[in-house]
Amino acid sequence: MTVSELQYLLGMLGTVAFAFTAVLAVSTRGIDLYGACVMGLITAIGGGTVRDLILEVPVFWAADLTYIWVALVSSVASFMLNRLITRKDIYRWMLYIDALGVSLFSIQAAHKVMKLNFGMPLGPILLGIITAIGGGLIRDSLAGRTNLLMSNEIYAIPVTIGCIFYVILLPLFPGNAVAVGIGCVCFIFIMRAIVIFRTISVPLWMTTHPKQS
Amino acid sequence: MTVSELQYLLGMLGTVAFAFTAVLAVSTRGIDLYGACVMGLITAIGGGTVRDLILEVPVFWAADLTYIWVALVSSVASFMLNRLITRKDIYRWMLYIDALGVSLFSIQAAHKVMKLNFGMPLGPILLGIITAIGGGLIRDSLAGRTNLLMSNEIYAIPVTIGCIFYVILLPLFPGNAVAVGIGCVCFIFIMRAIVIFRTISVPLWMTTHPKQS
Amino acid sequence: MTVSELQYLLGMLGTVAFAFTAVLAVSTRGIDLYGACVMGLITAIGGGTVRDLILEVPVFWAADLTYIWVALVSSVASFMLNRLITRKDIYRWMLYIDALGVSLFSIQAAHKVMKLNFGMPLGPILLGIITAIGGGLIRDSLAGRTNLLMSNEIYAIPVTIGCIFYVILLPLFPGNAVAVGIGCVCFIFIMRAIVIFRTISVPLWMTTHPKQS
Repeated sequence: MTVSELQYLLGMLGTVAFAFTAVLAVSTRGIDLYGACVMGLITAIGGGTVRDLILEVPVFWAADLTYIWVALVSSVASFMLNRLITRKDIYRWMLYIDALGVSLFSIQAAHKVMKLNFGMPLGPILLGIITAIGGGLIRDSLAGRTNLLMSNEIYAIPVTIGCIFYVILLPLFPGNAVAVGIGCVCFIFIMRAIVIFRTISVPLWMTTHPKQS
Repeated sequence: MTVSELQYLLGMLGTVAFAFTAVLAVSTRGIDLYGACVMGLITAIGGGTVRDLILEVPVFWAADLTYIWVALVSSVASFMLNRLITRKDIYRWMLYIDALGVSLFSIQAAHKVMKLNFGMPLGPILLGIITAIGGGLIRDSLAGRTNLLMSNEIYAIPVTIGCIFYVILLPLFPGNAVAVGIGCVCFIFIMRAIVIFRTISVPLWMTTHPKQS
Repeated sequence: MTVSELQYLLGMLGTVAFAFTAVLAVSTRGIDLYGACVMGLITAIGGGTVRDLILEVPVFWAADLTYIWVALVSSVASFMLNRLITRKDIYRWMLYIDALGVSLFSIQAAHKVMKLNFGMPLGPILLGIITAIGGGLIRDSLAGRTNLLMSNEIYAIPVTIGCIFYVILLPLFPGNAVAVGIGCVCFIFIMRAIVIFRTISVPLWMTTHPKQS
């Protein structure tokens, strides 16, 4: 399997995961099928679209509409399943699927940015984070939800560390791009999975004290 | 009247409608003239600006500032009128004017995207929707309003169907671009007008159950 | 000191001010260090990034990552200081530092847009405003805060007048670009400082009446 094939597969899996979990996330607010598709699509392709605009390259989905179709089908599937499964079951799965999407998307993005030699060494890290969490932030703004940045979730921190590793390791092992990529994806996923399994969040003493404003 | 003249006229009419209704929409929250102008401008040119960024073409208003002037004047007019007319009268008119803007903008956008042969066949539909509702979504995020996606409104569905028709019909009748354009604009407007007149919304059984989150 | 040196210095000072005040602004909601850095970074570089996307030029921070580093260090410093100082002391300082950032960033942006001859004469004014308040608007949307447009603050009005002056005065005194720039920056800062010192806001009779919606 070549690097570009790996990249494509990662992108598709990430798209399914993001659209699916997005619909579950907003479904608690009472949304119709059309709204579900828009929210799924925005979450799946929003972060990557912002990344491509900043990189001044054509948006990734224009040349290959498969991303759009996959996001739409995943959104519809999620909307349907949401009515069959109880909320608690969904929630567990949702978090793990989302962790997969986040790790896949961020490393794929870091790889794309490094190939373009954009804003090295911070560019791949910043755009990896934007690709991973950007779509979800836009979705939460549109849905009026509190986003992950404001809820003391340990979410973007694994992504950030994974992208930093990728930026450091890829130039050291240029012949092993696939192995380095898989390693960093696994690192992010495992960190996120531990956080979910143990329900770890940022300890309160490490946050500012919420005050009445 | 040539296609490009029609396009220009549609754009101007849509600009008036979008700025005017945007100010009425946010005026219930207590806004000053400056805020009204910003909200009117963002609603009028926001969707088209996002479309042009994604298309990697110069933003439409940079080459022709008439769009900005028209949006500003419409915002000021709306701000003034808002104080004279009662809320209920405004609201009826607001919905119909808005329907006109939405139908004009989306077909104009679909036309522009098809000319650029961008992401066919989904590109013109997606960017038609973004152009029609993007400015309003940004406005609602800034104003802290619940947007149309979360309120079971039948709003973007007519736009979507109209753009799908345009993408299908234009290649079939390439010599009748103006007629096809007018037809699709009328289709969207009439669908929206029926929805407004009969106060139809997405039936509750077709939405997810709102739950306490 | 050349114009470009002045521009660079203005950009750095503005970056410190924006990141620092952004963290203070969102800290009342209980945020961790990671969230603080993201919010500080978005506020500091968000407006300029949107400006560069609209101008179709490379984003300003890609070629010079100093902006990112300065924003990150300022965010961390603000997060730490926030715990030592009481809220009321901070608030006064925050407003004046912010006024400095706003005046620096907007004139720097207007200068950049005029050099590119983009959408004259409205382009430099609109993009000056976007650069000055865009990052803060994105931050407030992400943090769920009421933004300045909805709170009758006299905030963007000085920016707008300052940018209008710059667009008019620079072509009249092309040999005195530095003096014109400093003059307009001082004008905006002093107007903002008076507004803060006297706690002036838009009088209620000049706003729409907030109604129950």
